[in-house]
Formats: sequence, C-alpha cells, structure tokens
Amino acid sequence: MEHTSKTYEHELNDLREKLLLMGGKAEEMIAQAMKALIANDETLARKLIEEDREVNDLEKGIDQLCFNLLALRQPTASDLRFIVMSLKVVTDLERMGDLGVNIAERAIELLQEPPLKPYIHLPILSQMAQKMMKDALDAFVTRNEDLACSVLAQDDGVDDLTHSIFDELLRLMKEDPHNISRAVRLTFVAKYLERVADHATNVAEMVLFMLKGEDVRHQCVEPPPQ
Amino acid sequence: MEHTSKTYEHELNDLREKLLLMGGKAEEMIAQAMKALIANDETLARKLIEEDREVNDLEKGIDQLCFNLLALRQPTASDLRFIVMSLKVVTDLERMGDLGVNIAERAIELLQEPPLKPYIHLPILSQMAQKMMKDALDAFVTRNEDLACSVLAQDDGVDDLTHSIFDELLRLMKEDPHNISRAVRLTFVAKYLERVADHATNVAEMVLFMLKGEDVRHQCVEPPPQ
Repeated sequence: MEHTSKTYEHELNDLREKLLLMGGKAEEMIAQAMKALIANDETLARKLIEEDREVNDLEKGIDQLCFNLLALRQPTASDLRFIVMSLKVVTDLERMGDLGVNIAERAIELLQEPPLKPYIHLPILSQMAQKMMKDALDAFVTRNEDLACSVLAQDDGVDDLTHSIFDELLRLMKEDPHNISRAVRLTFVAKYLERVADHATNVAEMVLFMLKGEDVRHQCVEPPPQ
Repeated sequence: MEHTSKTYEHELNDLREKLLLMGGKAEEMIAQAMKALIANDETLARKLIEEDREVNDLEKGIDQLCFNLLALRQPTASDLRFIVMSLKVVTDLERMGDLGVNIAERAIELLQEPPLKPYIHLPILSQMAQKMMKDALDAFVTRNEDLACSVLAQDDGVDDLTHSIFDELLRLMKEDPHNISRAVRLTFVAKYLERVADHATNVAEMVLFMLKGEDVRHQCVEPPPQ
C-alpha cells in the first residue's frame, strides 16, 4: 500500500491523542467515583457505571489503530516499540476505568447507611493514585524517563497510606460490629485505589522498557535514604 | 532480512509454547498458594513469593519474541492478530502470577493465628478460577471459539460463590471481633480468586475478538434460562 510519511505521522499522532483521551477519561472516572462516594451521590455513581462502556470502546479503537499501523505500515524500531507498548498500556487504562466502576458500586452500597466517619485519607489516596496515573501516561506519550522514574518513586507513599487506612478500618470494625459492613467496603475502595497506583507503576515501567529496550526497573536513581 | 518460512513457523510455535508454559506457571502459583494457605505451610508460601520473578521473566521473553516477529517478519493478517493479542494475553498471565503472590502473602499473615474455620468454599472457588484460566489459554492457543465461550459462561458461578463467601465472612466478623483480622484477609483471598477469573474472562474475550475481528462479547450463544 502506497502512503505518504505525512499520513503515517498523522496516524502516530492520532494514537498519542487517543491514549491521552482514554487516560483522561479513566482518570476522570476515578475522580468522579470518589466524588460520588464522598458526596453520597447515587445518581453520579450510576452514571459512571454506564460510562465504562466509553472507556472500553476507546480501548478497542486504539487496538484497531495499532493493528492497522502494524499491518499496513512498516514502523521503524522506535515507533514499533511505541505501538507495541501502546497495546499493553491501554489494558492498564481500561482496568483503571473498571476500578472507577468498582468504587462507584461500593459507593452505592455505602449510601444505604450513614458515613462511618468523615472521609479524609481516602481522598488523599485517590489524589496520589490519580497523579501517578496522569504522570505515567504523560511520561509514555512524551517518552519522558525522569517522569516515569518519579512515578515509581511515588508508589511507596501510596502503599504506606493504604496500609494505615487498613489499620484504621480494622480498628473501627473491632470497636463496633455495626461498623463492619461499611469498613469492609471502604477497605475495598482503598484496595482499588492502590491498584490504580499499581497500574500507573506498570505503565511507568513500560516507558522505561520502551526507552531503554531492557528491564530497567532498577535503573532509576533512588534518592538517598533520609 | 532473508528467512525461510520454516523458521517463521518455528518462531510462532515457540510463541505458543512459551504462552502455555507461562500460563501453566501462573496457574501453578495460584494452586500452590492455596495449598500453602490450607496446609499452613509458610515455607511454601515464601518460596512462591520468590518465584514471581520467573513469571515476570517469561512475560519479558514473550514480549521480546513478539517484538522480533513484528520487526523482522511480515506476519499475515491472522498471525499478526495472534501476535498482537499475545502481547495483551501475557499481561493477564503476569497479573495472575501476582495474584498467586498476594494469596501467599495473606497465607503468611494468616499463619500467625489458628484457622478461622475449615476451608471448604475457597478451594472450590480456586479450582473454578484455575479451570477458567486453563481453558481460556487453551482456547487462545488453539483458536477454539466454543471453549472461549464456555469460559465466559463459567464466570457467573465464580461471582455467585465469591459473594456467598463474602456473606459468610461478614457473618463471622459480626459474631466475634476476634474473627475480624482473619476474615478480612480471607475476604481478600476470595477477591484475588475472583480477579483470576476476571483475567481468564479477558483472555476469552480476546480469543473471540481475534477469531472474529470485532467485539463479540455478546455473540456466544447463551443457554436458555432454566
């Protein structure tokens, strides 16, 4: 098939834009699901569950675009690596959207009872996970190694906060059996947010793999211990 | 690059074999992690956590093989689809291995206290999830549409059993606060197994997508309602 390099460049740009669009959509689903939880907003939670289809459709569109690029163009080594990694990155983005749906589902269940306590740490955890998500995708699309390394460095903070949230929820369960159902659901929400951060970590690792062409999980410079 | 079609066929077979090897390894990790949990076997649990590296290395090897096939061969449309989907399938297999590690981690925590009750439903759930995993990967490697559809049909049973396990664990937590820590950890184990089944469902959906080249999640013939 005859084609101009302009069209090929156009398709690659289209791929980058679609990835950013899908990532933005998935990130918004997490943010809105947390908003639904905190504001006891059932309508918003139900709307999000419906919207998951959009994220799934975006994945299919990106898969198809990658497939066409591979089938009809002969991408150079570095473009090929980008296309191959895009196929894997969208899987993480799609799962992030699913996790937004999972948070919305727990929010609907939690609406049936008064809030266990004011939400303070979960929104912070969500913001940390969302930032990792955004940074990881930006690092992928702009091939930014330092930004990818910064994502890996952020993951420990997420793990620490998740565990302190678990401990607090366990304490509330032991204090009063009436807290148990709600606390278990909130434990799930914390777990979902931790997984959002894990997906961001996966994407960041793929950026480093893409840029260096080898396993580079240990190549980011670690800050000296405090 | 000059190459004989024999070598190309050899590489494709190598890809299929590596996928089966990795799937077998991931499935074994789930099975062994459940064994460590049920038999209170800390040594086994710690061994599994170490073995996760092997699964990760298998993913990297498969990614590299796919990359080489794409870079150096010109795969036909149907082989191209298989290679592209392999890149996505290994992500699911790698996460299944991670879930085996997560079960092993919870098993080690649970060892500190006597078992909450005899494990009856969790091993059944694990067997259901492992069967879905195995069937999904077999369906992928042998391009078997009916087997892929049967995987999708199995998922409802997993969801039902997971929810009845959750209900029972919630009941045990409410009965006695001393049960709470253990029951929360077992709730996580059930959740991990449910996710193994979700990954198997993803793989089965990819098989159908690969075979039909479009979204076919609704194309499996549903059995008539009983």
